[in-house]
Amino acid sequence: MPERKKEIIIQGTPASPGIAFAPVHCVARGFSAPEVYEIEDQHVATEQQRFERALELTKIQIDELQTKIEQLSGEGEGKIFEAHLMTLEDNTLLSRVKDAIANRKQNAEYAFYAVMQNFLEAMRRINDPYLKERASDVDDICQRVLRNFEEETEENSDRPDHSHIIVAYDLNPSDTATMDRKKVLGFATEQGSINSHTAILSRSLGIPSIVGLNRAMMEVETLSFCILDGYSGKLILNPEPETISIYRERQLQKLKLQNELESLRDRETTTIDGREITLAANIEFINELPQVQKSGAKGIGLYRTEFYLLNGGELPDSEQQARVYTGVAKAMRPHQTIIRTLDAGGDKLSAEPLTHNEPNPFLGWRGIRVSLARKAMFKEQIRAILKASTAGKIGMMFPMVSGLREVQSAKKIIDECMLELDKEGIDFDEDIDIGVMIEIPSAALMANEIAKEVDFFSIGTNDLIQYTVAVDRVNPYVADLYKPTHPAVIRLIKMTVDAAYNHGIWTGVCGEMAADLDLTPLLIGLGIEELSVGSHQLPSIKQAVRSLSHAECSAMADEALRASSSPEILSLSKDLAMKSYPRLFE
Amino acid sequence: MPERKKEIIIQGTPASPGIAFAPVHCVARGFSAPEVYEIEDQHVATEQQRFERALELTKIQIDELQTKIEQLSGEGEGKIFEAHLMTLEDNTLLSRVKDAIANRKQNAEYAFYAVMQNFLEAMRRINDPYLKERASDVDDICQRVLRNFEEETEENSDRPDHSHIIVAYDLNPSDTATMDRKKVLGFATEQGSINSHTAILSRSLGIPSIVGLNRAMMEVETLSFCILDGYSGKLILNPEPETISIYRERQLQKLKLQNELESLRDRETTTIDGREITLAANIEFINELPQVQKSGAKGIGLYRTEFYLLNGGELPDSEQQARVYTGVAKAMRPHQTIIRTLDAGGDKLSAEPLTHNEPNPFLGWRGIRVSLARKAMFKEQIRAILKASTAGKIGMMFPMVSGLREVQSAKKIIDECMLELDKEGIDFDEDIDIGVMIEIPSAALMANEIAKEVDFFSIGTNDLIQYTVAVDRVNPYVADLYKPTHPAVIRLIKMTVDAAYNHGIWTGVCGEMAADLDLTPLLIGLGIEELSVGSHQLPSIKQAVRSLSHAECSAMADEALRASSSPEILSLSKDLAMKSYPRLFE
Repeated sequence: MPERKKEIIIQGTPASPGIAFAPVHCVARGFSAPEVYEIEDQHVATEQQRFERALELTKIQIDELQTKIEQLSGEGEGKIFEAHLMTLEDNTLLSRVKDAIANRKQNAEYAFYAVMQNFLEAMRRINDPYLKERASDVDDICQRVLRNFEEETEENSDRPDHSHIIVAYDLNPSDTATMDRKKVLGFATEQGSINSHTAILSRSLGIPSIVGLNRAMMEVETLSFCILDGYSGKLILNPEPETISIYRERQLQKLKLQNELESLRDRETTTIDGREITLAANIEFINELPQVQKSGAKGIGLYRTEFYLLNGGELPDSEQQARVYTGVAKAMRPHQTIIRTLDAGGDKLSAEPLTHNEPNPFLGWRGIRVSLARKAMFKEQIRAILKASTAGKIGMMFPMVSGLREVQSAKKIIDECMLELDKEGIDFDEDIDIGVMIEIPSAALMANEIAKEVDFFSIGTNDLIQYTVAVDRVNPYVADLYKPTHPAVIRLIKMTVDAAYNHGIWTGVCGEMAADLDLTPLLIGLGIEELSVGSHQLPSIKQAVRSLSHAECSAMADEALRASSSPEILSLSKDLAMKSYPRLFE
Repeated sequence: MPERKKEIIIQGTPASPGIAFAPVHCVARGFSAPEVYEIEDQHVATEQQRFERALELTKIQIDELQTKIEQLSGEGEGKIFEAHLMTLEDNTLLSRVKDAIANRKQNAEYAFYAVMQNFLEAMRRINDPYLKERASDVDDICQRVLRNFEEETEENSDRPDHSHIIVAYDLNPSDTATMDRKKVLGFATEQGSINSHTAILSRSLGIPSIVGLNRAMMEVETLSFCILDGYSGKLILNPEPETISIYRERQLQKLKLQNELESLRDRETTTIDGREITLAANIEFINELPQVQKSGAKGIGLYRTEFYLLNGGELPDSEQQARVYTGVAKAMRPHQTIIRTLDAGGDKLSAEPLTHNEPNPFLGWRGIRVSLARKAMFKEQIRAILKASTAGKIGMMFPMVSGLREVQSAKKIIDECMLELDKEGIDFDEDIDIGVMIEIPSAALMANEIAKEVDFFSIGTNDLIQYTVAVDRVNPYVADLYKPTHPAVIRLIKMTVDAAYNHGIWTGVCGEMAADLDLTPLLIGLGIEELSVGSHQLPSIKQAVRSLSHAECSAMADEALRASSSPEILSLSKDLAMKSYPRLFE
């Protein structure tokens, strides 16, 4: 009997929930340099032709891929490949390759490889998370072209035909797009963040995944058996029989709970003492809609529109946007779809290349600031939202509002757009709900004034915490100061809710706090009336709300408002949560 | 009669107040490449010697400079040259030069020039304001070494012996240090910011200056007559006779006013209805002390200690620090000196090289966050402050406090230090005042809890505004959103003052708002009891306070607290200011 291999647990960041059991399939990556050799003068033309052919072949493959992925998931994701095509059509890069072939007499593969490596290095040197993700796209295209020099035309010949878990250094959009969704039970990558393409895609496909698995590629071998735990972010190689049975049991429990929770789909989200809470979903891509509908969401509380900017795109005209918004509004009828106008900048995608580097992008040109400065672009989006407003119940909200003036300016532009549409004879909902994100301290402090101007507030807790405590939550030096239960944050939420209540409008939460089961009692107690979360998180939040007493939550929140430290507030809320819905913490 | 040259007005950023009339002296800068030629094998050794000699000569000159400037102004400023010496002793750079001479057979000047240019370019490519300032130091040293190849040993041979105004592309610390202070009546530079060395030095020397004068070097010629207006940031070339007489009159008025204001030196800073305000000074370097004493400041409200970090230095041990603090405390006796513990990070100097780049340094590892993480360093500073506390009345305050925990942790460390000093038999003031900067929204929101722990609050308005409104004030895309009179900011100041009042402690302001004559009525009205400003701004603020009625200010502030826009609040305060002290606005 061969020696059993030792069980190894590698810890990463959970990116998509679920548990998978399967043999590993390693996807080796990071391309090795092609051979370099000097070509003779008479071969220059042939090498140029080989280069052109490899390019053409790659373009055809990408066109096919794009069609395939658009069918699978919707327009947004197919656009990922437009950047790839653009790289292949970049004349500066291409002429450098041709020059290296003609003058430096390099073979075509190497000439191409060297030019692209230079370009990649330049992209990576710039310390910008967006460009880094783009570098991964360029890397992808490079490998594809290099493969095509070898006229290896059969795609994915190395993919196994049994169920497997993919372990890779990193995955490119084309890797995930071409895989066989029935056979791949999970992804695990060394690189990537919970916001990388792979993570987003795995969540929307409902496949468990883990990112940031340090040194995973060093430890695993293709065909070694493993357990992937997308809840805790653990990849367990060569699990002991006991480990397997523990995880089998856990998987069963999760499935059972999930089935139970999904059976709540059509039940009300009401506390035991009769307070109704609206549970809505956050979405970015239309391919998330089926999951949203399955979850029983009573609307979309946050429809992000930054996906248009993926891969350096820009907002399409109002006709094109209106088509997309109309589709979502129809699908969600009779519930409301709240569309957030473009929140470009900060850590999100840029609307345009900036002429100055922003030393503190979080304190920079973001959200409504960009929209108000780019009025034509802003109007296209508002017109599109208005046009879609007859297809279902639509709301529109503005990100990064810091005071009254921005709200008034934005509303003035809405009025202009309404007037124009009137003149053009285009129908729209004149009473469309207008709201603002409360995510800057000054907006919470001025909630009383702003409430007079709008129909609802949606608290963006992630940013609100960052600014209130002056902490960039992705900065490892200070991340431990980022506390959703910081007393100052709780007080700002309370100010916002009170101001809304005084003016007869509702307050929701669409930041990560809304999906944190520990904090549901606190938010309900503070008077939040709507929670908007990822659709896969919705069933458990519904169960939580249905287990709580609003009166108990309010009493607890009053105590929390008098508390002076975040652990104190956290434990007040968590204690009530554990008491009210212990099963959700199992 | 020759044709009169046209009057030209160039607008820059005022960096140090005052008006000067004198001929221009252009300081050409930006060094031109030395000739390059190939040396013969037998000359390699000679070239290496020439390089060594130029280096040695430069080191000697810098040592002399360092001594000279230390005598002039104090230790902090002399340290500027330590970075220069370090560059000359950087083995990587030097061996690259030697290699270029030995192997590439370059002449010594060019070899040195090329290596340094590469280094400079690398420094400038990194988008970091601190490194950019350092690049200017390296540039300085390069020119010095290149000059020494030509064995031009006489310093400043090109400086005129008549009164003049220096106009330059940029000035290095050694330019300003070696100039004849009696002959130089003003500085004007194309580059630089109000926080560059030149600007800081000109303010502390009391010489008018302007920075950011776009294309000034293209317009001026040595000996053309000009007027430099350090109040408005205007440089006027070839002024018409009328312009000259207008400015002569203005200068006279300013001098008259200044004399009048200075005659208030020993008068109380009390409103007409008897409310006393403490007027204190902000300082960074000890050479500012004579000016502080002349201004009649009733103490130092903010003694910054980041100067230790200039040019990559680190905090010296507690003995050395104690000597400096003791000197300041003694000089200010019987008034209080409030020492702010190290506020490293953000846009200020770094305490240590970070292993990760901070994408948003303003929301990063700064102030008390760094101190609490580097306890040994923090204790050295606290011990030094305690040791100095018997020499005069000292207070100590912490920057970037976001909540109660940081205050409690810092106080625990103070207790530890007191216990140690007790054991060592070292005397200190057991009742030393402890305060915190209120500059993060969460601190203002928790002022009631924090007030129980401390003896005073000092509002750092610059940062408080930035975080409250989520605006980096140096970012040109959003700088117009940075408003000291934003209603949310005013409300946070009010919360802070009220909390302090309820717990019997005082609140001061040490940010730029304290020196803004438009806003004096608002701050007094909100209940601020101490204003700490630059010493040259102190006389006019004193005159302003003495012209105001506290009752009127309070009534106006109540109205401002109900206002919903920043222009509204600004005009409420400004109207009262214009009415109460019109002459200060002339």
